[in-house]
Amino acid sequence: MPAAYDQLLAHHREVFLLGSTSALLGWDQETYMPAGAGDVRADQLALLARLQHERVTDPRVAEWLAACEGDAQVMADPDRIANVRGLRRDHDRATRLPAALVAEIAATESRAQQEWAQARARSSFARFRPWLERMVDLQQQKADCLRRDGQSRWDALADLYEPGMNAADLEVLFAPLRQRLVSLRERLSGGDRPDDSFLRVEIDEARQEAFVRAVVTAMGFDLQRGRIDRSAHPFCTGTGGDVRLTTRFHKDNVLDALGSTMHEGGHGLYEQGLSEQHLGSPLGEAVSLGIHESQSRLWENHVGRSAAFWQWCWPVAQQHLGVACAGHDAASVHRAANLVQPSLIRVEADEATYDLHVMVRFVLERALIAGEMPVAELPTQWNALYGEYLGLQVPDDRRGCLQDVHWSCGLFGYFPTYTLGNLYAAQFAAAADRALGGLPDLLRRGDFATLREWLRREVHAHGRRYDPGELCRRVTGAPLSSDAFLTHLDTKLSEVYAL
Amino acid sequence: MPAAYDQLLAHHREVFLLGSTSALLGWDQETYMPAGAGDVRADQLALLARLQHERVTDPRVAEWLAACEGDAQVMADPDRIANVRGLRRDHDRATRLPAALVAEIAATESRAQQEWAQARARSSFARFRPWLERMVDLQQQKADCLRRDGQSRWDALADLYEPGMNAADLEVLFAPLRQRLVSLRERLSGGDRPDDSFLRVEIDEARQEAFVRAVVTAMGFDLQRGRIDRSAHPFCTGTGGDVRLTTRFHKDNVLDALGSTMHEGGHGLYEQGLSEQHLGSPLGEAVSLGIHESQSRLWENHVGRSAAFWQWCWPVAQQHLGVACAGHDAASVHRAANLVQPSLIRVEADEATYDLHVMVRFVLERALIAGEMPVAELPTQWNALYGEYLGLQVPDDRRGCLQDVHWSCGLFGYFPTYTLGNLYAAQFAAAADRALGGLPDLLRRGDFATLREWLRREVHAHGRRYDPGELCRRVTGAPLSSDAFLTHLDTKLSEVYAL
Repeated sequence: MPAAYDQLLAHHREVFLLGSTSALLGWDQETYMPAGAGDVRADQLALLARLQHERVTDPRVAEWLAACEGDAQVMADPDRIANVRGLRRDHDRATRLPAALVAEIAATESRAQQEWAQARARSSFARFRPWLERMVDLQQQKADCLRRDGQSRWDALADLYEPGMNAADLEVLFAPLRQRLVSLRERLSGGDRPDDSFLRVEIDEARQEAFVRAVVTAMGFDLQRGRIDRSAHPFCTGTGGDVRLTTRFHKDNVLDALGSTMHEGGHGLYEQGLSEQHLGSPLGEAVSLGIHESQSRLWENHVGRSAAFWQWCWPVAQQHLGVACAGHDAASVHRAANLVQPSLIRVEADEATYDLHVMVRFVLERALIAGEMPVAELPTQWNALYGEYLGLQVPDDRRGCLQDVHWSCGLFGYFPTYTLGNLYAAQFAAAADRALGGLPDLLRRGDFATLREWLRREVHAHGRRYDPGELCRRVTGAPLSSDAFLTHLDTKLSEVYAL
Repeated sequence: MPAAYDQLLAHHREVFLLGSTSALLGWDQETYMPAGAGDVRADQLALLARLQHERVTDPRVAEWLAACEGDAQVMADPDRIANVRGLRRDHDRATRLPAALVAEIAATESRAQQEWAQARARSSFARFRPWLERMVDLQQQKADCLRRDGQSRWDALADLYEPGMNAADLEVLFAPLRQRLVSLRERLSGGDRPDDSFLRVEIDEARQEAFVRAVVTAMGFDLQRGRIDRSAHPFCTGTGGDVRLTTRFHKDNVLDALGSTMHEGGHGLYEQGLSEQHLGSPLGEAVSLGIHESQSRLWENHVGRSAAFWQWCWPVAQQHLGVACAGHDAASVHRAANLVQPSLIRVEADEATYDLHVMVRFVLERALIAGEMPVAELPTQWNALYGEYLGLQVPDDRRGCLQDVHWSCGLFGYFPTYTLGNLYAAQFAAAADRALGGLPDLLRRGDFATLREWLRREVHAHGRRYDPGELCRRVTGAPLSSDAFLTHLDTKLSEVYAL
């Protein structure tokens, strides 16, 4: 009879296999699946989700966990402690949710997401409103099952995506950051707007693709253990030896393709950098969405929007993009890549205004989940906050509160992980700069391996060994703050905007 | 509490969902999967196979089946009778196999297949021999679990692939066919060898791909409910709204790409032609491998190698292949497509000698499974039969008894379904010709819809309603024989070879 620890890990490996199978089905759905396969695909995914949930909540898991926690030999081994702690967390969380509620949420999400797509296409909040009301109600029920010891509903949901995250701590981080970003936005509007003509040059998609593949390969994304395909919305899925990125191309905006491919490439390097030995156990899993996003943002913004990177990249761009590069140079393209232009749509936002979009959602979803704001008021409040934070008038709900899929999928407490990712990215990049004797020198000569291996050692290889906050302190010597991010923006944008 | 029939069908839908998920994983493995994903993929597939087996053998299935079989209302409905009969068959068969044997066979197959690939690459039968001995032993054990009422081991295995098939009936079909095919081969060697220079024209792969896609689309393969990709070995997988074909291209043999794509397209039309209403139940499943192969062979050979088809196809070929067509015409290419050339490799064989390859294997695998021939004698016996049936000397085991993957995967009793497919195809094509007032007229004007819809109505739409033999009698008015096949070959090849 194998020891409880071995049984626990073998059992969890099935959860991993089912989860990675779902990930492949999801990837296929967005890349190659024929339209006619949609109904069966939804049923396949629902079945796999149920099989995973059954395994995570299996009563034997509680027995194995208790046996491990009472076994001095197991609890003397740091690896085993970390795995037992991770599986304890997963099990306790999953068992708090009644299967009927899980099923109802899944069924409602599927319908609500379709209704949201219809509502967005018609810019009709009225159409989406009953579905959003239903989703908020279900998420409140879910939060009531999950929350412990006076925890708020929103905090209980947010903890699903970022272990240890809560609204009070976020408010401390976000309030001053919001002020600084609003004032930066106002300040930049008085600077010299960079020449962004490179963003309007038409370039053949095949050339764009060869170019972004060259860059992502140079970053070290391993095509023996991953793929790059196309989809309507770029994403990264999979883990270990099977990591799949997607990208997309616009005829007249190669920097969009480059930025989003480097972004997904950063996610991909994290997944490829997880411990192979621990694949299929918590030590081989990503720790949080915020840390995941830090890896994508670090490569997208701290590498891909830096002057040093463009000194390396410009000849690569010229080689692949040819005549489109005429009349531009590394410095002008670097400036174009750093254009700040407040806009209505989060996913199109620049580095300096992106987090203001997140903060609008952070305010509103807390009010919704706390029951302090009726769903009916969402458009009015949304539009007011866009005026206050971004200085913009929202012309319609399609470009307003209907723009994101998240809430229709039941993702409340998720948006702030995007901003956490930006802050972690800046703090990690600053730590790497110190540890490696200057990032710009490395980037200028195209040495991405030194940074990548540092990230692998310092961040990726730990999997879920440390909580995000603890990981940040270990890697950077300090708790998370917005200092590094603001310093990074101020320094770079003052130069780009000649302030 | 839903009725037993509804519970049974809902339960079987999970088997279908797990099976179709496995099919997608298998497709991905052969098309887009990165090399590094192989180990996890094997574990995912093994888990899904176990989950399917657990469901098929679930003791509740026996209870539901018994309840249905004793329910006069269920047994008054032809659809329900067919579904209950199919699920009874699946359940009884699966429960006869001990889980430990199933697992041991799966594990051995995986190793044996890798060893076979190594052995074939080195042309070393000695290397593969212990693995083949192990596989034969395991398949004998499997057959002993499956067989009933004095059934032979080989018959018990063959019934897995072709319900009702047995060696005695096959021998009655095959013995005279073998004589006729051997004599046809000898006769053709005295005829005028057709000009096959079109088979050596180099054509760009992109042009070949556009051409074969145009043909398969004209056949009616629905790309809203399927895909065409590339793989090392062409195959078709999936069902209903998600049917995936693959094809491959050789620079200098566009007819190979056309033939294999039409072949897989025929499989694909069968899967797309199954009843949508019954998807996920036996009435929505293919009935046997022989009937499946009849659909691929009908399109590949009775359509794609006919003179009438080439009258339609030649302008299509000219449009896509351009200058490569210069100096050829519909008639000359039709003759080139019907070249008979005995060869060592089954998968490269022409229409007139293919079945002789199958018959070699039919003789040898019966002797192996019956324990009448030691594995060590396989190469000698193989080579002797290739001399007798095909008039060829086998130079090495790589081009001899190591050429096929099947036995390393435990597929004994499978090969004859290829020849059954050829015979069913000819008998169905002759019936269609009678029913539709002449196939050549339809093909000459590119009317593939009439034939396709006839096949859908007569064959596809029935799913597993009738056993293959019964289906053949219903569709063609006669039991299966080799008459139609031999008439087809004699008529066409006498003309091509000007005999």
